[in-house]
Amino acid sequence: MHKLPVGVLGASGYAGRELLALVARHPALALAFATARTREGARASVEGRPVTFAAAEQAPLGDAALVFSALPHGESAPWVARAEEAGAKVVDLSADLRPGAGAPAKPVPYGLTEIARDAVRGARVVANPGCYATASLLGLAPLAEGGLITPGATVTINAASGVTGAGFTPRPDLLFAEVAEDFRAYALGNSHHHVAEMRAVLGTLGADADLVFTPHLLPVSRGILATITVPVTAIPTDPLAPWRERYAGEPFIEVAEEAPSLRDVVRRNAARITARPLAGVRAPTLQVIVAIDNLVKGAAGQAMQNANLLLGLDETAGLLA
Amino acid sequence: MHKLPVGVLGASGYAGRELLALVARHPALALAFATARTREGARASVEGRPVTFAAAEQAPLGDAALVFSALPHGESAPWVARAEEAGAKVVDLSADLRPGAGAPAKPVPYGLTEIARDAVRGARVVANPGCYATASLLGLAPLAEGGLITPGATVTINAASGVTGAGFTPRPDLLFAEVAEDFRAYALGNSHHHVAEMRAVLGTLGADADLVFTPHLLPVSRGILATITVPVTAIPTDPLAPWRERYAGEPFIEVAEEAPSLRDVVRRNAARITARPLAGVRAPTLQVIVAIDNLVKGAAGQAMQNANLLLGLDETAGLLA
Amino acid sequence: MHKLPVGVLGASGYAGRELLALVARHPALALAFATARTREGARASVEGRPVTFAAAEQAPLGDAALVFSALPHGESAPWVARAEEAGAKVVDLSADLRPGAGAPAKPVPYGLTEIARDAVRGARVVANPGCYATASLLGLAPLAEGGLITPGATVTINAASGVTGAGFTPRPDLLFAEVAEDFRAYALGNSHHHVAEMRAVLGTLGADADLVFTPHLLPVSRGILATITVPVTAIPTDPLAPWRERYAGEPFIEVAEEAPSLRDVVRRNAARITARPLAGVRAPTLQVIVAIDNLVKGAAGQAMQNANLLLGLDETAGLLA
Amino acid sequence: MHKLPVGVLGASGYAGRELLALVARHPALALAFATARTREGARASVEGRPVTFAAAEQAPLGDAALVFSALPHGESAPWVARAEEAGAKVVDLSADLRPGAGAPAKPVPYGLTEIARDAVRGARVVANPGCYATASLLGLAPLAEGGLITPGATVTINAASGVTGAGFTPRPDLLFAEVAEDFRAYALGNSHHHVAEMRAVLGTLGADADLVFTPHLLPVSRGILATITVPVTAIPTDPLAPWRERYAGEPFIEVAEEAPSLRDVVRRNAARITARPLAGVRAPTLQVIVAIDNLVKGAAGQAMQNANLLLGLDETAGLLA
Repeated sequence: MHKLPVGVLGASGYAGRELLALVARHPALALAFATARTREGARASVEGRPVTFAAAEQAPLGDAALVFSALPHGESAPWVARAEEAGAKVVDLSADLRPGAGAPAKPVPYGLTEIARDAVRGARVVANPGCYATASLLGLAPLAEGGLITPGATVTINAASGVTGAGFTPRPDLLFAEVAEDFRAYALGNSHHHVAEMRAVLGTLGADADLVFTPHLLPVSRGILATITVPVTAIPTDPLAPWRERYAGEPFIEVAEEAPSLRDVVRRNAARITARPLAGVRAPTLQVIVAIDNLVKGAAGQAMQNANLLLGLDETAGLLA
Repeated sequence: MHKLPVGVLGASGYAGRELLALVARHPALALAFATARTREGARASVEGRPVTFAAAEQAPLGDAALVFSALPHGESAPWVARAEEAGAKVVDLSADLRPGAGAPAKPVPYGLTEIARDAVRGARVVANPGCYATASLLGLAPLAEGGLITPGATVTINAASGVTGAGFTPRPDLLFAEVAEDFRAYALGNSHHHVAEMRAVLGTLGADADLVFTPHLLPVSRGILATITVPVTAIPTDPLAPWRERYAGEPFIEVAEEAPSLRDVVRRNAARITARPLAGVRAPTLQVIVAIDNLVKGAAGQAMQNANLLLGLDETAGLLA
Repeated sequence: MHKLPVGVLGASGYAGRELLALVARHPALALAFATARTREGARASVEGRPVTFAAAEQAPLGDAALVFSALPHGESAPWVARAEEAGAKVVDLSADLRPGAGAPAKPVPYGLTEIARDAVRGARVVANPGCYATASLLGLAPLAEGGLITPGATVTINAASGVTGAGFTPRPDLLFAEVAEDFRAYALGNSHHHVAEMRAVLGTLGADADLVFTPHLLPVSRGILATITVPVTAIPTDPLAPWRERYAGEPFIEVAEEAPSLRDVVRRNAARITARPLAGVRAPTLQVIVAIDNLVKGAAGQAMQNANLLLGLDETAGLLA
Repeated sequence: MHKLPVGVLGASGYAGRELLALVARHPALALAFATARTREGARASVEGRPVTFAAAEQAPLGDAALVFSALPHGESAPWVARAEEAGAKVVDLSADLRPGAGAPAKPVPYGLTEIARDAVRGARVVANPGCYATASLLGLAPLAEGGLITPGATVTINAASGVTGAGFTPRPDLLFAEVAEDFRAYALGNSHHHVAEMRAVLGTLGADADLVFTPHLLPVSRGILATITVPVTAIPTDPLAPWRERYAGEPFIEVAEEAPSLRDVVRRNAARITARPLAGVRAPTLQVIVAIDNLVKGAAGQAMQNANLLLGLDETAGLLA
């Protein structure tokens, strides 16, 4: 069987390496190139085999049917344009083309696949959502679309991420001895750049709510847990009904009675969601908990869902066990 | 110098062992007895030296000037009564005598020391606060006492604790291989027993607010971080002013510009607090973050503050560096 | 395609659950039954789906073409006999039938697959090697078979294992807060039961050497690293030659220039091996380092290799990526 | 009481910060200066309080009665000379002046305090031992001094260290997500620079033995465990007698029946040692296990023991609980 050639820009980071692994296991894709700035000490191996990185400038962009860009925020947009000009479709994992990221020259679909499947299918370029935004929005979308979020209310999102979310960057504060046995909040005061991304998307889904988002750094390698407190117009008789109905048949969304935890989802392209009514509060309020792997459903896995759609392949190709 | 004899009931658990260590280092206290149900495999050593446990029934309660009870919730109250009858003062670390815990025969001061110092000083028995409640209430008390919490609003507390908070109990879900690389919420739907405790105390401090409290289990041994979102009547000009003023001169409260993390407080009897106004929300809202060591300021250290007061000693004796 | 029915005895422990996952992904096997003593708190799910355990007494042994026994040491042998009488082939993961384990009624092949492939192929029952023994013997076998180990010398094996090696047992010393940030040796004085197993097997491979084996408990979930110091009759010109030659073409053995670490092998049925001559010592001596996943190549994965051979399937079925 | 001024060169690394904490708690010392190259992201706080670092060039070396140098290997020696010329006594924590480190202009005592106490007491400059060497040599010294190590035999040392042993250096391979859930050997083939240090010292203690030393990197922050296999001329009737006799009365050495682990020693200036005869080997052989905190007894704590001696203070000042 003929395999479609794909390239990965920025392949030496955590998301980039996850993409390489997904491409290596994909039944219909072959790796055309992988680029990385040389970095001393980087151990890059894919499924046990070493990978040779090219400089981005040498990458044969036109040879690829599709290019994944896992370049850093701020550096990605020009390469997306170059790849598109060279005739490739593009999934951009950076924030550069996402809603809320400033004024892009040309808006592209926001690839929260379960919410924007049709727009993705017809696109040439897709902006892959941020990891925190993926967890939060998959939890909130059924309520927003259903008009269930109390207008004018404040939605409070507390999320915690494994350290791969901070990238493969040799920062002193990410050393093992600094992160182990610690836990910290960051981006205080609602200052994380995913807030604008989530606010913009929630608005398009019909919600008129304020967002408070506090991210935390966990002493684990992978995974995001988002704990969301959301005032609602009424508590549904079956509190899980909004998610069960909205995500019926979705291969990568799991609606669960029990609270999901990181172990339920790491190394899988899954979002696991539960919800509960909150007792003892006057305003009807739901607690929604979502777990994803920040590198899979929160990055490379969702990027592959989008790539499959862009290339006319089965959306689940290369993503199920 | 003559040392006052103290006893520890339930000394083989994590809080009990922390108490033993504090007593061993205390300049004015000596251990009269320590009790524990024999437990196979329990490694109990204090500052490198093994400790022999007696059965509670054999403990010479009357020999102690003060008894700490670190017995499990539901088992502690009768032993508190027995120790009191034998003439000892008591600090009870269980939930049995705390507000919100049902209908105690006889209310005793709630030993959140910085808030209830005078009541503690005159008491014979003190109910030591829960670990989550300590972190949350130290964060909220200056706002509650100052009338700054928006009446009728919902205060959202997300807290995460190290596993020693669950006690030295051989539960399968607390095994290393189950906890490492995981993170989970529990007591969903506002069902944690500290909610009633916090609600009762906040009410006495003058707040009319609803509470949403979601605890989480961290893959660390010690420490609690509470991230609190609290609607306020107005944002203070200096967002830290309520805490700086209320806790001026407090030896165990640190008000910080930067976000506190577990490493700032573990193995210390400290609560470290910061606050920020939340940008981009219509209702004026503060973000308050509090870090404590669940076994020290959240249990044994605060118990020692209270014991020092009950015994007429300096409140900081045995607790600094 | 018709799938062969297999059963798993003792399926709720770590090795048992790993077996269930391997069966679920196997192209030619289907789960006929899984047994477990009911255990409160056990979270048993396979690839995201819950599994219902039967009591061993209810298991339809005769319905299975092959039975894996992951029962505890000392309990397994009678069930192996029962399964064999019922007509099933058996892979026994316990120590009961291994060499060095006392005097079995009837010796069965020792399933260190790469070393005993032909014996396994013709058997009805196979004793699956212990995890430490697998790592150590795969490292030593090429030297032993080649007559390279100095006669009468002492081979020193230091090995460290993740805590799943101790089983899914709620022991206080395996709680997260006891294991994290710790590292300890155990079974001091050469007292681990794998010593007899390794000594017996090395003897059959032609080595006349004494063994010193010290196991250690690592604060990780999975993986074994064995660091072996072995006096040799001569240092090979290419120090890796003995392994490269002996394991040429082996799908699950990786001979590497660089030191292998746990990350290279976890969740894979791989043994990764390197060797170096030791500088500055008078007696020619090699350092051999072997990494495996204790639950995969050290237990369930190797058991599946053996099961594939017993059932006439491709040895790698269900085991590659 | 008048306090003696001391300075710390290279105070922003892990050993340097540990020194700052020890100075802060010392009853007879005061910090005169602390130097560090400015490093973005370095969080330097001592006992909860921030410390301001000077450049080494600005440090008033002559104001200090004693200078600790925690500068990197290769950079320290010239600063030791400068501090000595300025009239300060010096404890050098680098490898620059240790035996086996090449040809120092002027040999200085090797500050393995329990072994070289008198030499240290009369010195102006002391070379503080390496962390691995401290653990290994404290384990071997009683055997070497007693002539118990089999002449010509090979002593095998396997040691594992927490990551602070690698320093506060933003290397990609020391990031949390690279170290967690991993374990690796390094400096293969007897190539670690502590081998020469240990060999030189063991020689001066009278041993004629070869050394094989394999260090490993543990996913913990602190602590070293050394597991030593040592052929002996005869097994002592009481296997612990050599250590009990040699270290009788030593305040910082603990000889234990049970295997020591990292938890027994972290954050304490203690070396904890046990020994066992090895069963089943023809040559009489002992297994010696030593645990220390690499940053305390293996670096800053032992440096403080030496500083106390150099300054005529009680050796234990500032070091006991």
